[in-house]
Amino acid sequence: MKAMVYHGPGDRRLETVPDPRIEQSSDAIVRLTSITICGTDLHILKGDVPAVKPGTILGHEAVGIVEEPGSAVTQFRRGDRVLVPAITSCGVCEYCRRQMYGQCLNGGGWIFGHLINGLQAELARVPFADTSIHKVPDRLEDADVLFLTDILATGYECGIVRGGVKPGNAVAIVGAGPIGLSALVTGKLHGPRAIIMIDKDDNRLELATRLGADHTLNPDKQDIAEEIMRLTGLGVDVAVEAVGVPETFELCADLIRPGGTVANVGVHGKPVSLHLERLWIKDITVTTQLVDGYTIPLLLQLIEMGKLDPKPFATHNYQPFDRFVEAYDVFSKAAEHKACKVIVKAA
Amino acid sequence: MKAMVYHGPGDRRLETVPDPRIEQSSDAIVRLTSITICGTDLHILKGDVPAVKPGTILGHEAVGIVEEPGSAVTQFRRGDRVLVPAITSCGVCEYCRRQMYGQCLNGGGWIFGHLINGLQAELARVPFADTSIHKVPDRLEDADVLFLTDILATGYECGIVRGGVKPGNAVAIVGAGPIGLSALVTGKLHGPRAIIMIDKDDNRLELATRLGADHTLNPDKQDIAEEIMRLTGLGVDVAVEAVGVPETFELCADLIRPGGTVANVGVHGKPVSLHLERLWIKDITVTTQLVDGYTIPLLLQLIEMGKLDPKPFATHNYQPFDRFVEAYDVFSKAAEHKACKVIVKAA
Amino acid sequence: MKAMVYHGPGDRRLETVPDPRIEQSSDAIVRLTSITICGTDLHILKGDVPAVKPGTILGHEAVGIVEEPGSAVTQFRRGDRVLVPAITSCGVCEYCRRQMYGQCLNGGGWIFGHLINGLQAELARVPFADTSIHKVPDRLEDADVLFLTDILATGYECGIVRGGVKPGNAVAIVGAGPIGLSALVTGKLHGPRAIIMIDKDDNRLELATRLGADHTLNPDKQDIAEEIMRLTGLGVDVAVEAVGVPETFELCADLIRPGGTVANVGVHGKPVSLHLERLWIKDITVTTQLVDGYTIPLLLQLIEMGKLDPKPFATHNYQPFDRFVEAYDVFSKAAEHKACKVIVKAA
Amino acid sequence: MKAMVYHGPGDRRLETVPDPRIEQSSDAIVRLTSITICGTDLHILKGDVPAVKPGTILGHEAVGIVEEPGSAVTQFRRGDRVLVPAITSCGVCEYCRRQMYGQCLNGGGWIFGHLINGLQAELARVPFADTSIHKVPDRLEDADVLFLTDILATGYECGIVRGGVKPGNAVAIVGAGPIGLSALVTGKLHGPRAIIMIDKDDNRLELATRLGADHTLNPDKQDIAEEIMRLTGLGVDVAVEAVGVPETFELCADLIRPGGTVANVGVHGKPVSLHLERLWIKDITVTTQLVDGYTIPLLLQLIEMGKLDPKPFATHNYQPFDRFVEAYDVFSKAAEHKACKVIVKAA
Repeated sequence: MKAMVYHGPGDRRLETVPDPRIEQSSDAIVRLTSITICGTDLHILKGDVPAVKPGTILGHEAVGIVEEPGSAVTQFRRGDRVLVPAITSCGVCEYCRRQMYGQCLNGGGWIFGHLINGLQAELARVPFADTSIHKVPDRLEDADVLFLTDILATGYECGIVRGGVKPGNAVAIVGAGPIGLSALVTGKLHGPRAIIMIDKDDNRLELATRLGADHTLNPDKQDIAEEIMRLTGLGVDVAVEAVGVPETFELCADLIRPGGTVANVGVHGKPVSLHLERLWIKDITVTTQLVDGYTIPLLLQLIEMGKLDPKPFATHNYQPFDRFVEAYDVFSKAAEHKACKVIVKAA
Repeated sequence: MKAMVYHGPGDRRLETVPDPRIEQSSDAIVRLTSITICGTDLHILKGDVPAVKPGTILGHEAVGIVEEPGSAVTQFRRGDRVLVPAITSCGVCEYCRRQMYGQCLNGGGWIFGHLINGLQAELARVPFADTSIHKVPDRLEDADVLFLTDILATGYECGIVRGGVKPGNAVAIVGAGPIGLSALVTGKLHGPRAIIMIDKDDNRLELATRLGADHTLNPDKQDIAEEIMRLTGLGVDVAVEAVGVPETFELCADLIRPGGTVANVGVHGKPVSLHLERLWIKDITVTTQLVDGYTIPLLLQLIEMGKLDPKPFATHNYQPFDRFVEAYDVFSKAAEHKACKVIVKAA
Repeated sequence: MKAMVYHGPGDRRLETVPDPRIEQSSDAIVRLTSITICGTDLHILKGDVPAVKPGTILGHEAVGIVEEPGSAVTQFRRGDRVLVPAITSCGVCEYCRRQMYGQCLNGGGWIFGHLINGLQAELARVPFADTSIHKVPDRLEDADVLFLTDILATGYECGIVRGGVKPGNAVAIVGAGPIGLSALVTGKLHGPRAIIMIDKDDNRLELATRLGADHTLNPDKQDIAEEIMRLTGLGVDVAVEAVGVPETFELCADLIRPGGTVANVGVHGKPVSLHLERLWIKDITVTTQLVDGYTIPLLLQLIEMGKLDPKPFATHNYQPFDRFVEAYDVFSKAAEHKACKVIVKAA
Repeated sequence: MKAMVYHGPGDRRLETVPDPRIEQSSDAIVRLTSITICGTDLHILKGDVPAVKPGTILGHEAVGIVEEPGSAVTQFRRGDRVLVPAITSCGVCEYCRRQMYGQCLNGGGWIFGHLINGLQAELARVPFADTSIHKVPDRLEDADVLFLTDILATGYECGIVRGGVKPGNAVAIVGAGPIGLSALVTGKLHGPRAIIMIDKDDNRLELATRLGADHTLNPDKQDIAEEIMRLTGLGVDVAVEAVGVPETFELCADLIRPGGTVANVGVHGKPVSLHLERLWIKDITVTTQLVDGYTIPLLLQLIEMGKLDPKPFATHNYQPFDRFVEAYDVFSKAAEHKACKVIVKAA
């Protein structure tokens, strides 16, 4: 089969590799039909995630069709259309029982394109199939559900739910990339009085406005803290960090009101400073979170009911699988191409 | 009247000063009968809290008797025995309505011995009396309730409640001073499976054991992180920071399991490092909190029912008011004197 | 001044009565500009609320202008435009501190047009002014905020918040009168996947559709339980009872899924049957709640931001005060007049 | 093997029956070592649970040793000592994912001694072994953990957790049988200021006192509502119904304060009256719950740490299995024999 394979920093190749096989009776082999690329894949290609060994197939976001369920799989049959999320779950460890699948103690969690072969391929072996993948309703297209596999769940779970966004809250989201925009569209489910998007790229801010942002701010043009105070009085209730560098984290901590929360979603490579000398008295909360995917069924239902529409996230489409290289080229220069998410149709 | 007055760093004096008077109709004048000293008073005396102006009476923890209620005071009468907490509340701002009295927007919050004259005096003016002070049941002595004014409420609200301690949790408390010990005795109300106290002073650890600690650890003698992993497997559910320096905060962050919480209680003078490069993926929560005092009625009932006993906190007693200087001398060298809390009986 | 006075069952009169006066220093006298009528007023007129003594001025929902603040009032001045909610709060009792103003132990709670003179008058004495009334932003008209005084807060607090409506939930609201419709418009703030309105009056169902109901059902035409199962599979997550008779309460209990909640909002005159012989095993929750009004500031901000629009509730307007009798005539025959809420402009 | 078999109302027999066999690859065969009898077994024998077919082996509470794990079982091996709880879990349905195992949609939930053969036997087939049974630590005896299989988890989950017992609460538990006493000992984990046990049997009240009840009341000797008001002022925060008849449910509703909760644990055979004509305005909550067993790991850890001691529950012990009939005779006349729980050692 064809696959996008990691061969060390800066080196990704479209290759022909052996088809995957069932290894455990709880595995399933899935033929992937629609696949996307994540900012994390770009991090891996920069060499930021040394756990990824050369030779690993990249990717952790795809929709496909069950080709072969393992003998212990009871919930899926050959031919079932499924979404394969970034996170797998053993279903039995104490974290999986508490729906903290990202912290699985038995070899689940984030493994695709990281510790095992990923989903940027024509076929994939999916461990713990019964407790990890989800059926896709017939009436929905791949593009309706593909972004549930990571970004929508990440923005919602790590930004909005962990941030504790409540009706009437003012929310700032720092970073209007796919994750920040996912926090935006799912944040509206919690009834905030205003969501304020902050980014240096005006294209992204424009997309944010189309997706329902109440205000947009560009730090190259405005004093963010000053504008936030003007808009909110005391600061926002929740600031979502969706970039992953110290500056944006520390900005978030400056934007919240007493009693507010910074929900970190960004992938960080360095420590940040937490200014406890002024924050110890301010009743703040800082959270971090790896996506678990426990809200996928909920978000799927909202998509089905027309309450959430992920289609505007897909700015670029490629078909067939051979165009994956092109997809990577565009996604890795997202600003230049005004790209948000790209979809590769595998067949 | 007599009072302990701040005259700049290192300079505290027992002086005779004019009696306080009602300034607002919602004030009350209270004759103080039992008073204590806080670690924060020592911080002030080091010059760490520049907001405190020379000439200010120190102190924010006392029990007394209402001498004169202002004309708008409806809940208290002359002669009522009351506890005067560290935090006052206007009762009408949005924070006070949410019981976040420490963040009062109308001039309440922590003001005694800080922004207005404090409680280390024979008499005090108490603003917002109706919404700030609490009646003391007849059957309880001053020493039963005095520590509710700050440390017990602080340890409980900022450490245990904000830390989200749940039945079955393992809890580490870093710092076995009055605040850490308060977190210990109130933490037991939440049904933890173990509370582990960490301090460099073996006297304090011994007191911790008497107060019900399940384990005690001394970082001068043990590798704390290693011991915690040995005792808990994955780390503690909640680490309470009750010291206030970067090292102890960062230690706390190392002791918690995935999904765990660091509840900061310590008063910090410097920023700390938050290692998001490894914590972004660990689902952690960091909280800060200034005491509000909203749990005082609850803790008072538990003391009344014999479920909580604050008396062992008082290691030294002084009477009459003139011995306040002596009390300060001992409290400021607590380790040397094996002191936890001191009580000055004013009359 | 003029006022609508209760003189026993069936007997309401537009009368000239003495102006109210300050009785406590925490009172305020408010000149009312816009007033509405509640279903509860009709209950009183049927004699269902014997606590209301003949001679009492009716009404508990109005907007006005502070005419005279009592000497202890600190938050409001003569000329301030305010909304006067159904519920007053002493601000100091244990329930008021927990924002359960409806359960006030010091003479607050629901008293207007019940235990003291109400708001269907040109002037009213408002007890506990500082902790009970709310300033109206200049840019908002009376009609924007009038329904916050009772129905919107009631539908939201007693139906949606107490029902625990969460993103993705299916919600049934039984009764599409002003309260049920308030639960509908505020329920949308919680991100449900569907809100299903149930009523026998097609006019009301039509208004429900205009206000955003996802489905409407009429029990005269459909088998409600069957339709709900068809729409939801296992039943709704939350059923809001907004009628107040045993049949509708028991219907609600039949509509919820295992783990679901019946949030009672209706005013009941008789006991209901709770079928524990089948429900003991179903993990259900039943809640009752009197409105507290603690969400009024939140809802007011959402109205200000354009996220909530109460204007469609007002189907009939009357001016001047003398037309109050006419307003009552129409409101008491709401179905016939296709009336939802009526507004009387007092001047 | 030997087993206690149900043959219709009033007819239980100690019989020799065929050994169970693995039916699904996720099953395990467990050799039971310690078994107990539940009040529900007595209900079944009265004919109250018609779903139980004659020929069914009774019982749903046992500890044993894995004899044969099915081929898909990954978490347990032959020889593992395990507790087999009343509730099994498929691990994949939406309720099991939310830890509501009692509502399992795939054939789990309460099935032992109900829909399939139970645990009052020398061997049992346990479906969904990986997600249903729990390893027993070596240092603990059978009697330390046996009551986790049902009563302790039931009292805790359905009474204390669902009742929302908080530190400082006053709690009334109506019924001092095994379930009520389980609510008592686990309720103490939540830091209540007082737990008040109510029962007509003075022996049980005496056991309640030994297990830590703060007060005991006997309705044959005292006016319960009057005593509760005397002890608490406004009523209890939480009333736990642990009997299962209309009178005790309605008593619970009379004992709670405004804002309080009735947590129903009892198995009911008839509807109850809910007095909404007076409760609609009182902000009450009523909950029902079937045990899920999700707290078993937590309670097991507390037993291991010595924070919870279930041994006093066992008043009678029988060995070998043949004495099961005798155990039933005593348990079915519990008052006469001053019995709480009986243990049958199978070998």
